[in-house]
Amino acid sequence: MKAKIFDTTLRDGEQTPGISLTPDEKRLIARKLDELGVDVIEAGSAITSEGEREGIKKVTSEGLSAEICSFTRAVQVDIDAALECDVDSIHLVVPTSDLHLEYKLRKSREEVKTMAIESTQYAVDHGLIVELSAEDSTRSDMGYLKEVFQAGIDTGAKRICACDTVGMLTPERAYDFYSQLAELKAPLSVHCHNDFGLAVANSLSGLRAGASQAHVTVNGIGERAGNASLEELVVSLYSLYNVKTKVNLEMLYEVSKTVARITGMYLQPNKAIVGENAFAHESGIHADGVMKKAETYEPITPELVGHKRRFVMGKHVGSHIIKERIHEMGFQVDQEKFSQIFNRIKALGDMGKCVTDVDLQAIAEDVMGVMSEKPVELQELTIVSGNRVTPTASVKLKIGDVEKLEAGIGVGPVDAAIVAIKKTIEDVTDIEFEEYHVDAITGGTDALIDVVVKLKHEGKVVSARSTQPDIINASVEAFLGGINKVLTDKKLNESKKLL
Amino acid sequence: MKAKIFDTTLRDGEQTPGISLTPDEKRLIARKLDELGVDVIEAGSAITSEGEREGIKKVTSEGLSAEICSFTRAVQVDIDAALECDVDSIHLVVPTSDLHLEYKLRKSREEVKTMAIESTQYAVDHGLIVELSAEDSTRSDMGYLKEVFQAGIDTGAKRICACDTVGMLTPERAYDFYSQLAELKAPLSVHCHNDFGLAVANSLSGLRAGASQAHVTVNGIGERAGNASLEELVVSLYSLYNVKTKVNLEMLYEVSKTVARITGMYLQPNKAIVGENAFAHESGIHADGVMKKAETYEPITPELVGHKRRFVMGKHVGSHIIKERIHEMGFQVDQEKFSQIFNRIKALGDMGKCVTDVDLQAIAEDVMGVMSEKPVELQELTIVSGNRVTPTASVKLKIGDVEKLEAGIGVGPVDAAIVAIKKTIEDVTDIEFEEYHVDAITGGTDALIDVVVKLKHEGKVVSARSTQPDIINASVEAFLGGINKVLTDKKLNESKKLL
Repeated sequence: MKAKIFDTTLRDGEQTPGISLTPDEKRLIARKLDELGVDVIEAGSAITSEGEREGIKKVTSEGLSAEICSFTRAVQVDIDAALECDVDSIHLVVPTSDLHLEYKLRKSREEVKTMAIESTQYAVDHGLIVELSAEDSTRSDMGYLKEVFQAGIDTGAKRICACDTVGMLTPERAYDFYSQLAELKAPLSVHCHNDFGLAVANSLSGLRAGASQAHVTVNGIGERAGNASLEELVVSLYSLYNVKTKVNLEMLYEVSKTVARITGMYLQPNKAIVGENAFAHESGIHADGVMKKAETYEPITPELVGHKRRFVMGKHVGSHIIKERIHEMGFQVDQEKFSQIFNRIKALGDMGKCVTDVDLQAIAEDVMGVMSEKPVELQELTIVSGNRVTPTASVKLKIGDVEKLEAGIGVGPVDAAIVAIKKTIEDVTDIEFEEYHVDAITGGTDALIDVVVKLKHEGKVVSARSTQPDIINASVEAFLGGINKVLTDKKLNESKKLL
Repeated sequence: MKAKIFDTTLRDGEQTPGISLTPDEKRLIARKLDELGVDVIEAGSAITSEGEREGIKKVTSEGLSAEICSFTRAVQVDIDAALECDVDSIHLVVPTSDLHLEYKLRKSREEVKTMAIESTQYAVDHGLIVELSAEDSTRSDMGYLKEVFQAGIDTGAKRICACDTVGMLTPERAYDFYSQLAELKAPLSVHCHNDFGLAVANSLSGLRAGASQAHVTVNGIGERAGNASLEELVVSLYSLYNVKTKVNLEMLYEVSKTVARITGMYLQPNKAIVGENAFAHESGIHADGVMKKAETYEPITPELVGHKRRFVMGKHVGSHIIKERIHEMGFQVDQEKFSQIFNRIKALGDMGKCVTDVDLQAIAEDVMGVMSEKPVELQELTIVSGNRVTPTASVKLKIGDVEKLEAGIGVGPVDAAIVAIKKTIEDVTDIEFEEYHVDAITGGTDALIDVVVKLKHEGKVVSARSTQPDIINASVEAFLGGINKVLTDKKLNESKKLL
């Protein structure tokens, strides 16, 4: 069983309703994919627009190790656009089902086969590697499908690909289907969609049946329910089938986060492998088991994919785990103090809130009467905003012994407040604002809002959060929390250097 | 192939880190599940807490059609707690892998088997239906596993269940594994976790191999990467295996939304069957195909699962689809006007924004110079907020010919503004605020914020959106947009009645 990885995040992935990448975003993702170690990067569909071609050109000019590919239809103008972008290969797609031929293309089987042959010939003549692909192949007549593929191979196509365009295969049918195509003796790709949640299982079946390459996208993004997910496929191959790919598994979590951030397609917490909960444990029994031996409730280690384990404390939490965590944080607590901490955490759990490690630290510090030093303190914040008012904020901070007052304007009230704070601290330090993240808010306008900020200082990233019903106060508190962490760490490092 | 549906949204699902349901929320979800038609509702784990028992009691006192079940360990105190809640059955779980026995339970195989027998006996004696379940069964010795199950069956357990606790099965192994257990001739449940993205495929394999019941959760929620998803499983059974369950497919989307809202576990757009993109189409070719014949790019109709089709316009959009949509909206446009509309939509697409039907209507109205009548107009909005200020808003609305001015306070500035608006319109109409939703905001504090509100009036729900960098203005604009739609529709209906 072999498995080359053909990544189509930048083509099928970008066709996700709502996603549109700029040329520079395409380049950035392509670099990451190359570093990750995929075999082929489908960088886009060159015919789409001027901006798309600019993006593909940025990718081809990077000198990456991966083969760079463009999607084309079986028409010369598409292939010319791909040639203009200097790609290595094309993913040349023709529909083969009667449904697509009749309703979409309005062409006969013979006409489509001729298009496939002529386009393959044209591309091969111009030095392109051709992967000839059949759209809606799984609803096509097998005889006709093989005929088209054989004609393409005879004309010089180096690979063939059968797309399960509407995701209707089952693992059993995928095995039968790809077995038949493997008889053609050309390198075969499996391309599965996830409409029934079976894309990864079907891809695995295809590879078992003799396909040698799988089309995937990071995070499984793509039209409708998306494509087979890269991370699920390669980790299943590695852990369940003992098949190695060239993919550097340890980069999976990072690449997933990058793609989510750039595309704006955030993952549900229970997404396999790379979701925020993939290695999170809450319930007393489970968390307890993991602490005794991780394998009890983890099929793979989070480190394998560059992720991290996370214990979440809620209403199912046991006292054992909290004790252990507090001890790790360096606190010495007696039974009474421990009960106070434990009860506050249980109470948060009963309210439906989860408690992170950071929150636990704050609760423990509070109960123990330990106060983290705060180099910067908020004294005053005032916001004026409205429909005929420029959002304006004034902020008074105490920095060490000095009080500083600044005003700022912004595109909205949160922005104005952050602009004002940045002004007050610009003499103190050169903190960069990396990311501002607010979870989806749903419910009423009085819902609690969870703000997480990431700040960068001398190459190190620090994150901080605040949860409040007021989005402005939450944003300001999180931002100041991050600044204080940076300044405290800095001071600690400086005192270490002096020793 | 038979498939009873054992729903564990309220037990395995609730163990998701970060989820904690109140007793009333449990009851509400249980009612929905019963209406949906699942065979068994696992309502919780009675031993967990007082609140948990209260929740389970609320479920058992509803008189639902489904069998109501509680999770228990193989200890008397757990079964007593379940009895107190008056459940029909228990899901009695014993670990069977040496790994779990050694590291978690610290008991021998013989001891665990005895616990299983004694607990089954105790539960049967007290009139409970027992489903004897093996935790981490897929990493257990098959001989020992069968021995435990056979002892349980002999003692009176009515069903057995084998849990793939860390999701390590593949479809092939699942088939082999459940085939062997099916030899025991007791009704067998398949219980799969999704750590590698294979839970649904493995569950289907288990059912093919002779299991007669599948454990699932709505939206696939659960510990780590979650459990097999109810909606993916039942729709796969229906569409790909021609197997009917008692589940009313048309309710799937609604139930998914309810669970997402109550648990706060929102789905990624590309979630199969019930994700927001599951039936969304963007790219020119795909959308064009769907308009000609939906089957070209849709494996099932959205109506089958109570979902709806959505066309999203971005940089891949073709002119054909926009023309068709505008025509449907009742506009007569010439080529020049059409080009203006088309270019504005393409431009939004190049910026990485998607355009919904509602946005298209607004763009078309704008280009055509048609102004929808606005019964309510915002004249003035002023907000004062800060860290030592009660968030306060004043708002002046023009309602018909009357100007109304009100002030409001809230937990944050957005809340204050909405409170003020509600006061101004309370004489005009009795609109209820159903839902306020802000997408996750990531990037800088100057990011565009997309606010969608749902308002309810006389049983009808209307939604409206606004996208701006200022969250307060966006919220107010969306809210007023919704109010105007309700009032316009009302006027239209009244004039129809007069005819």
